[in-house]
Amino acid sequence: MLHPQVQQALDAISSRPIENVFLVACGGSSALMYPSKYFLDREAKTIAADLYSSNEFIHRNPVRLGSKSLVILCSHSGNTPETAEAAKFARSKGALTVSLTNEPASPLAEASEHVIKYSYGPDAPAFETNYSIMYQLVSGLLYVKEENAKFHRMIHSLQGLQAAYDRAKIQFADQAKAFAASNKDEKVIYTMASGANYGVAYSFAICILMEMQWIHSHAIHAGEYFHGPFEILDKTVPIIQLLGLDETRPLEERALHFSRQYGEKLIVIDAKEFDLSGIDEDLKGYISPLVLNFVLRQFANELADARNHPLSTRRYMWKVPY
Amino acid sequence: MLHPQVQQALDAISSRPIENVFLVACGGSSALMYPSKYFLDREAKTIAADLYSSNEFIHRNPVRLGSKSLVILCSHSGNTPETAEAAKFARSKGALTVSLTNEPASPLAEASEHVIKYSYGPDAPAFETNYSIMYQLVSGLLYVKEENAKFHRMIHSLQGLQAAYDRAKIQFADQAKAFAASNKDEKVIYTMASGANYGVAYSFAICILMEMQWIHSHAIHAGEYFHGPFEILDKTVPIIQLLGLDETRPLEERALHFSRQYGEKLIVIDAKEFDLSGIDEDLKGYISPLVLNFVLRQFANELADARNHPLSTRRYMWKVPY
Repeated sequence: MLHPQVQQALDAISSRPIENVFLVACGGSSALMYPSKYFLDREAKTIAADLYSSNEFIHRNPVRLGSKSLVILCSHSGNTPETAEAAKFARSKGALTVSLTNEPASPLAEASEHVIKYSYGPDAPAFETNYSIMYQLVSGLLYVKEENAKFHRMIHSLQGLQAAYDRAKIQFADQAKAFAASNKDEKVIYTMASGANYGVAYSFAICILMEMQWIHSHAIHAGEYFHGPFEILDKTVPIIQLLGLDETRPLEERALHFSRQYGEKLIVIDAKEFDLSGIDEDLKGYISPLVLNFVLRQFANELADARNHPLSTRRYMWKVPY
Repeated sequence: MLHPQVQQALDAISSRPIENVFLVACGGSSALMYPSKYFLDREAKTIAADLYSSNEFIHRNPVRLGSKSLVILCSHSGNTPETAEAAKFARSKGALTVSLTNEPASPLAEASEHVIKYSYGPDAPAFETNYSIMYQLVSGLLYVKEENAKFHRMIHSLQGLQAAYDRAKIQFADQAKAFAASNKDEKVIYTMASGANYGVAYSFAICILMEMQWIHSHAIHAGEYFHGPFEILDKTVPIIQLLGLDETRPLEERALHFSRQYGEKLIVIDAKEFDLSGIDEDLKGYISPLVLNFVLRQFANELADARNHPLSTRRYMWKVPY
């Protein structure tokens, strides 16, 4: 069954014309919207989609933002000032605002017309977590606006996500430990992906490696790799290569094929190894980034342990003015 | 006067309905389209714009790509296989294709309906170079489709670009040398910008630093900085901070303000210091990234000299199969 607050948002969406969708958040909350941008690009026949960091969205001030716009925002704490401000800005332009947050008593929730509280933490059912809620919302949008036939199967497939996570947790436990042991002293670790998976690579680079581990990083787009970044590769450079199941997989495979010839520190997480039973075949490409992200979180946990640098360590965030 | 091949493309554009624009290229040729995406977002009332790396575009296969699409492609040599393939793919969907290249006898040119040859090199007039041609084309698009009032002033302002480059060359010569002397031994150098300038930061990171100098890099979005990347900052981390003149300048200023408190290796290039006489006041934000890019090329030249690592050095590109 659909999350009831998603249903409420869809009811509001169905009562008005929507010409475009803006996906607006910062950092990790923005990264979790990338699969939805991919989904909308591939599926939405009448609705354009754009994704912006919250303050970029406000200052860029897209001229097509208006009463026929849906703005989807996300902040875990609901306290991200730029994102709450973006909700106010979008409403001032007449747009419909729907926000995802873990904290319904927050500035973002107060600033938004519709609020969806997602679940969080080790015991949260995968169906109720942020990535899943995003897909419920955008596939629901295309169902109510365009009768997209994937909606009901998407909901059904997302109900199989927890089992996929549980299986992946066991399956990748040893690889996560091995990754941490091999990479704990690295000063630079790149990530790479394309398509629906790029946001997961981006999130691991900026939130896990740079923010939580103070390791230099950059999420390389696998299609861009051969137009600059690949010249950095030698036998000392670690790259985490994600391989998803979406239509852009050939880009990721090509990058890996090259890296394997000239690099020696490649970490590969391949969605083909996942047991995705219960998830519809033609939705596995969309849902793979969610499982890739889940697996990478284990890699992050193990890396933090091996480096004795807890993921909660910060020097600036929430500690000094910025 | 408008570039005659731009005029031909605009004649073709005016004869058919355009609902969306796809900006499609790889690496540096993609980066030079970012300002046009910013321009279209802010100015285009009826036309949606998206920017994709060529192979991502093909495999993502946006469902709204069709006979009401304009696809603008770019490859300097015209030989980039993914971009030539993207032109064929776009035509197979019924889209109108316009390609920028320095080589009109090339696979990309052959695959495209309209070809615009831009000038290149130290003696090329700025008005005829790739960044300028892009603005002629997208502002022309909005003129023929939406009577955008900035078009004629954009053309006039671009005619003032060469003089702005000439002045900047003299003005920043010493700073470029000082940058090279201070940073020649760095292993990691970040770049940062937002808005119309982000593509320039991206290009310097992936094409100059990673590709041509084998220095680790990442173009940080100034609005994302505080949601992860800033935790990497300490007194040893060099960041090239670009400050433009567009509406997102407050994001770049905020990032710099923070970095100055906790970092000691900041390189600032501020478009406020440019002499942009001859460029219309309300277009300076759009045109600043072109001058920032020009100035950064001097920084690249000096860095290559100081490191005794010519910008033409490659280990893989054009040398091994990939």
